[in-house]
Amino acid sequence: METLVLILDLVGTFVFALSGAMLGVRRRLDLFGVLVLSFAAATAGGITRDLLIGATPPAALSDWRYPVTSLAAGVVTFFRASLIEKLHHPVRLFDAMGLALFAVAGTQKALEYGIAPPMAAAMGMLTGIGGGIARDVLLAQVPLVLRAELYAVAALAGALIVALGHWLQLPPLPCALVGALVCFGLRMAAITFGWHLPVALQSGGDGEPPGPLQ
Amino acid sequence: METLVLILDLVGTFVFALSGAMLGVRRRLDLFGVLVLSFAAATAGGITRDLLIGATPPAALSDWRYPVTSLAAGVVTFFRASLIEKLHHPVRLFDAMGLALFAVAGTQKALEYGIAPPMAAAMGMLTGIGGGIARDVLLAQVPLVLRAELYAVAALAGALIVALGHWLQLPPLPCALVGALVCFGLRMAAITFGWHLPVALQSGGDGEPPGPLQ
Amino acid sequence: METLVLILDLVGTFVFALSGAMLGVRRRLDLFGVLVLSFAAATAGGITRDLLIGATPPAALSDWRYPVTSLAAGVVTFFRASLIEKLHHPVRLFDAMGLALFAVAGTQKALEYGIAPPMAAAMGMLTGIGGGIARDVLLAQVPLVLRAELYAVAALAGALIVALGHWLQLPPLPCALVGALVCFGLRMAAITFGWHLPVALQSGGDGEPPGPLQ
Repeated sequence: METLVLILDLVGTFVFALSGAMLGVRRRLDLFGVLVLSFAAATAGGITRDLLIGATPPAALSDWRYPVTSLAAGVVTFFRASLIEKLHHPVRLFDAMGLALFAVAGTQKALEYGIAPPMAAAMGMLTGIGGGIARDVLLAQVPLVLRAELYAVAALAGALIVALGHWLQLPPLPCALVGALVCFGLRMAAITFGWHLPVALQSGGDGEPPGPLQ
Repeated sequence: METLVLILDLVGTFVFALSGAMLGVRRRLDLFGVLVLSFAAATAGGITRDLLIGATPPAALSDWRYPVTSLAAGVVTFFRASLIEKLHHPVRLFDAMGLALFAVAGTQKALEYGIAPPMAAAMGMLTGIGGGIARDVLLAQVPLVLRAELYAVAALAGALIVALGHWLQLPPLPCALVGALVCFGLRMAAITFGWHLPVALQSGGDGEPPGPLQ
Repeated sequence: METLVLILDLVGTFVFALSGAMLGVRRRLDLFGVLVLSFAAATAGGITRDLLIGATPPAALSDWRYPVTSLAAGVVTFFRASLIEKLHHPVRLFDAMGLALFAVAGTQKALEYGIAPPMAAAMGMLTGIGGGIARDVLLAQVPLVLRAELYAVAALAGALIVALGHWLQLPPLPCALVGALVCFGLRMAAITFGWHLPVALQSGGDGEPPGPLQ
């Protein structure tokens, strides 16, 4: 079981790192920039969670397998970018798997550190989406996770199931499985059927910030 | 007294969350994006302060009232955006109150954790302005706090009064009141009279970064 | 020796702060914005490192000399911006010195906190480049460090030498000197000869993000 989780965790790391590296290549960053984006996209969610729950140094830094996996994804992408472009559909599948696993594992780690269930679920969601946010902030663009169809909501749903199971004192393994399946299923359904969250109705929004509420 | 501080703190959280949610609605983010901006604008300052002074997990995560308040502000804004637009003046007033309270409370928390008074004042200022910075970084724009009239300076003035009072071993409650009033007064005066900090004279600045000092 | 390291460390802080302040002046931020950029550029790398290795409160906040030095650089730049512009070449030299010193000192601090050598080297690199990244994120632009010629690679090379020396149980002082010289030399050579890292070949990249791998 432990080995399975580790393998899935590293697969998630690899796929998230691919997403960061692809963006770096498209923006014409050099090799180093691509590797930084790989690492940020794969580990920023987990690192932020670990900082917030007081688990320093973060696992993504103290366990060598995470940086090595994310840097390997960056190197592969850098030298085989056109190949990765063609893999769009498998990558999409792996990405949904990575999201499900990160959301579930992140929630469980927060619960182990004594965080209350609702905030533990938020930490799980953050583990899943934090990497994408860091990647986009580094590229000076509004994080796509804030706009994409049900991406974060799927992560939150999976995380809430794990947190709820913990609160009800159910056995953790089945809860983790159900949570991961719900997250994965929601995300794949959102892609397949084009589900979106609503956008607020607003007349004549000009996109300009209101300033610090002057 | 404790109840009063809690109420004011939650009012501040609510108003800062409104500012984040309004920006999210104007940028046409979906419901989730709007809620993330609410939460970030209301709590990023306090969370960063807590990380820096080693108070993990941050209060904004471990006390359920803060996330609930900020998410409630986000939901209200999302479904009643046009209403909030009309409330511009009251929001401005609440925002100045929130800034004053966050600056004072942030300084006091840092002092309790043994931070030296000058840096505790900086932590208080960060508590007040950090949310606005996180909000703007997530929206890929230069933080308005770095340009707005006396916003951060008002927070710093209030925080310095609290820190100075601590250093002189004055009783904390009157210092907190004076600090909050000075911050609130400075901010409202800056809005009313259009006070600005100076901008450096410079011939032919082209806005281009100099690069990493090559 | 300790005094020498402190002086070099403060010189590095001063020069990195200059780089942040110059960018703030060029973007026409007010005095406060310029000071925030000075402080962020000079200390964000060290602060992030300290958060990641669990050394709270970060030295850049608990030791008054770091904030005072970085704010002094900001004030000087604000009132003498045209003078600093002319100093381009000396600033470039100081910047390479600061990078070398931050990379080496950052690695050593991480090793002292029990971080494994490879990640300690990454922390050293982060100490050197983190300030520039924070500066550019605050200005809503892609961090130049991700694109500039051998900037981060020079920091990493110096940091790796220190980490390798620690792993081989060599005496720390000579390792630190060699590491700093290698970093400084690589950076100056990259500037002088225009060395760059490669950029991935890619047909028809449009610079658009692929979205969260939909």
